[in-house]
Parts: sequence; structure tokens; C-alpha cells
Amino acid sequence: MAAPSDEEGAVGPRCHHRSLTMLDVPFLPFCAFLGALGLLCVAMVGTWCQHWRGGFSLDGSSRTFNWHPVLMVTGLVVLYGAAALVYRIPNTWSGPKLPWKVLHSSLALGAFVLTVLGLAAVFCFHNSQGTPNMYSLHSWMGLGTVLLFSCQWAAGFGAFLLPWAPTWLRALYKPIHVFFGSTILMLSVASCVSGINEKLFFSLKNGTMAYKLLPAEAVFANTLGLLILIFGVLVVAALARPSWKRPDSDSLNSRQ
Amino acid sequence: MAAPSDEEGAVGPRCHHRSLTMLDVPFLPFCAFLGALGLLCVAMVGTWCQHWRGGFSLDGSSRTFNWHPVLMVTGLVVLYGAAALVYRIPNTWSGPKLPWKVLHSSLALGAFVLTVLGLAAVFCFHNSQGTPNMYSLHSWMGLGTVLLFSCQWAAGFGAFLLPWAPTWLRALYKPIHVFFGSTILMLSVASCVSGINEKLFFSLKNGTMAYKLLPAEAVFANTLGLLILIFGVLVVAALARPSWKRPDSDSLNSRQ
Repeated sequence: MAAPSDEEGAVGPRCHHRSLTMLDVPFLPFCAFLGALGLLCVAMVGTWCQHWRGGFSLDGSSRTFNWHPVLMVTGLVVLYGAAALVYRIPNTWSGPKLPWKVLHSSLALGAFVLTVLGLAAVFCFHNSQGTPNMYSLHSWMGLGTVLLFSCQWAAGFGAFLLPWAPTWLRALYKPIHVFFGSTILMLSVASCVSGINEKLFFSLKNGTMAYKLLPAEAVFANTLGLLILIFGVLVVAALARPSWKRPDSDSLNSRQ
Repeated sequence: MAAPSDEEGAVGPRCHHRSLTMLDVPFLPFCAFLGALGLLCVAMVGTWCQHWRGGFSLDGSSRTFNWHPVLMVTGLVVLYGAAALVYRIPNTWSGPKLPWKVLHSSLALGAFVLTVLGLAAVFCFHNSQGTPNMYSLHSWMGLGTVLLFSCQWAAGFGAFLLPWAPTWLRALYKPIHVFFGSTILMLSVASCVSGINEKLFFSLKNGTMAYKLLPAEAVFANTLGLLILIFGVLVVAALARPSWKRPDSDSLNSRQ
């Protein structure tokens, strides 16, 4: 059962309060756990490419391709997740807002730059091998995700950082920006998981190392895929959690 | 930029109201569109397996495997999405609640039965071909999703349909059930997309039909994957939309 009635929670204020208190988790320890999980994902994707896939180079070989998973997981998932969570830090809820806006957009821009470099790595590899680009469902979904991300960044910059953006435009665009913030992360995670799955089928072909025999590399990279999934789900959960959102009472000093 | 400050919307009630009105979409036409999109996904996955993959049988061949994508897309994505949206229908917000609870859990149970049959199809195919089960990241993620779904259904049944479930338990469990409702759908969609990607690499191997040459089947199945993604994102968006949730004012008559 997926979505019960909202009435299920109607149990009187005291009981409801007690139940919510039981579920209460402070943001900062959760955020530290998420950071550790994100770093673990980056370390694991680097280890996979270094230890099992031959390491890294810029010569157009499969060692150039190896930058692709590392940069995508680092940029489009982990750094993107960090950017998305900036406004959930309680310190951002009071005092000047502009520095936090700049931090949010800078982290997102850093994520975008890594993502574009990750795309460049796979295009360079394909072109030097004479392999066509953009044929698999993974590539369609991945490029669509990056295009959405670029629109999200440009529209966010225009609406929230440029001082002459009209107030009605900010109000109109804000829920759209928030919705696509989580959606792009979900699409990023789905793209990464399908890419890892595809890469393992490509790489583990011969008899003794076949994917279906579950060699150590397969167990390692499958585990990496599951950790990326868990990271994405936890970031989306943190973004959606009402008690971690900026209190509405702060809403009078919004213009910078 | 992924998640702007909640303060961005602080623009005065009139302007905010106008902006929200501009974004307002009535639920029922949106739901009809989602229904049509879901049916299109089911029709397309059936067409793919019938027209390009040899059709259906129960003999353990690849034609038995073909039940797997059809049942997973139909059960774990489309019927699951329908079950999730039941409480967003305005008619459910007043009058007796039990019939809607029964509809919600029955649709979810139907989705679960189709999902289990879909798993049986791929296990039967693998066993009759001597292929190991459960080695790919797709299979790990997919089985994890189905296990989560089974826990979700059983816990939802125990907490919301059994009359002796204590009130505090319902209040405690409800936000968890709602969160996993959307999460399981996202995981289902990611599983389907990685499965379609994997199947295309498996099936389109020989020279004239290679996946990388983008034959008609590849374009068709890639498009199917994107439509499943869009369906999932739209269902999650509909579940998250505040104005489509049951109004809190109904909350006094919750016990059935």
C-alpha cells in the first residue's frame, strides 16, 4: 500500500506529538552520515575503476572512459546532493541569506562542471574507438538528466540570484525549482545505476570472470550501485522532511 | 541549483496567491492523462515483447522471459501508481473511508501479485536455461524493491486495516508508509529502466541489428523507458502536491 489517507494521523495532539518525537532525528548528525555515505560512494567508484578497470588516462582508451563513472557519481549525485541540502542547515535560517545562496549555486555549478567533464570523457572514448554516441537508454536518460540540470541551474540563477528578477516570478518558479531539484537527483541515481549495470555486462564477458558468476568486481560494483540508491533516497527524504525545512516565520526578510 | 530557500516564496499574499493559481492544475484531468500514459506504457512493453522478442509462452524459453517486463511494468509501476493515487481523488475526502482503504489495498495487492508472477517468469526462464539468478545490479535492486513492497503492504494492512491497531502506532507509522510509498515507486522505475537497458544489450548483439546502430526496436524500447520515467515522476509529483492531499479539516473522523 503506497499512500494511506492523511487522516490516519488524526489521533489527538498529544499522541501525535509523541509519535513525531519518536521519529525525530537531528539534521546535522544525519547530514554527517550522508556525507560519509557520499564519500564512500566516491571512494568505491574510484576504487572500482582503478583496481579492476585499469585506472585513468586521457588517451581516449577505456582508461579515459573510467573518468565517466567517477565524475558522474561525484558531480551529479554526491556534490549535487550537497548543494540541494544547503538550505536545510539550521544556520541558513537567520542572518544574511546571500552567502548561502552563493554557496548553493556554487556547489551546484561545481556539480555541473564535473558532470560536463564526465560527459566529455565518454564522448572522447566513443569517438576515439569509433563507437556511436547516444544510442542506449542509459545515455538518453543520462543526457536528459544533464539537460534538465542545466535548465535548473540557469533558471535558478536568473530567478533567485539576479536582483532584478520580479517577485511574482520568484514565487511562481520556486515550487517548480524545488520539485525539479529532487526529480533531477532521482534521475541522476537511476542513470548511474543503469550505467553501472551496463558497464558490468560490457566488462565481464569472458568465461572465468563472467558477470553471472558474481566475481569480486561484480559484488563490489553492485554494492556501489545500491549505496548510490540509498544515498539518493536519503537526500530526497531529507529534502521532503517538513521539520527540516526553513520555518515560514522567517519569510519576511527574503529579498537580498 | 536544487533546493532554494523556502523564503523565496515570501512575496505577499496576493502575489503568492496569483502565482499559485497560475500553477493550478485540476487533479482529475491530470489523473486521466496519467492513466493514458500508464496504459501506453503497458501497450508498448507488450508490443515490444510480442513484435520484436517473439511473443509469450510458459515453456521456459525466452518467450517465458517476456512475461517479466510486461508484468513488472504493469504491476510494479502502473497498477502500483494507481493504488498510490487513490487518496488523492477528492471523492475519498468525505463519507465512509473503509471502501477507499479496501480499494487502495486491493489495487496494491493486485500490483504485488503481478510483480510476483513477473519474478516467477524470470526465475523460470533462468532455471530452464541453466543461467544463475540474482547476479546483476538490476536483479539486486529489483528484488530489494519487491521485498520493500511486500513489507509496505503487510505493514500497511496491519496498521491501517486491522481494527485493533493502536492509534499511536498508526500515527507513528503513517509518515513512514507515505515516504516508502513514493520511494518504492522510484525504485521500481529505476529497476525497470535498468532492466530494459540490459535486455536491449542482451538481445541486440549481431551486426545488422546491434543496439549501437539504433534499429527501430532500440528506439521503441528506449522511448518506452523514458515514458516509464515520466510516468513515475508525475505520480510522485502528484503525491507530493499539497493542494491534492486530503484537507486536514477532515481529520476527526479517521477511525473505521
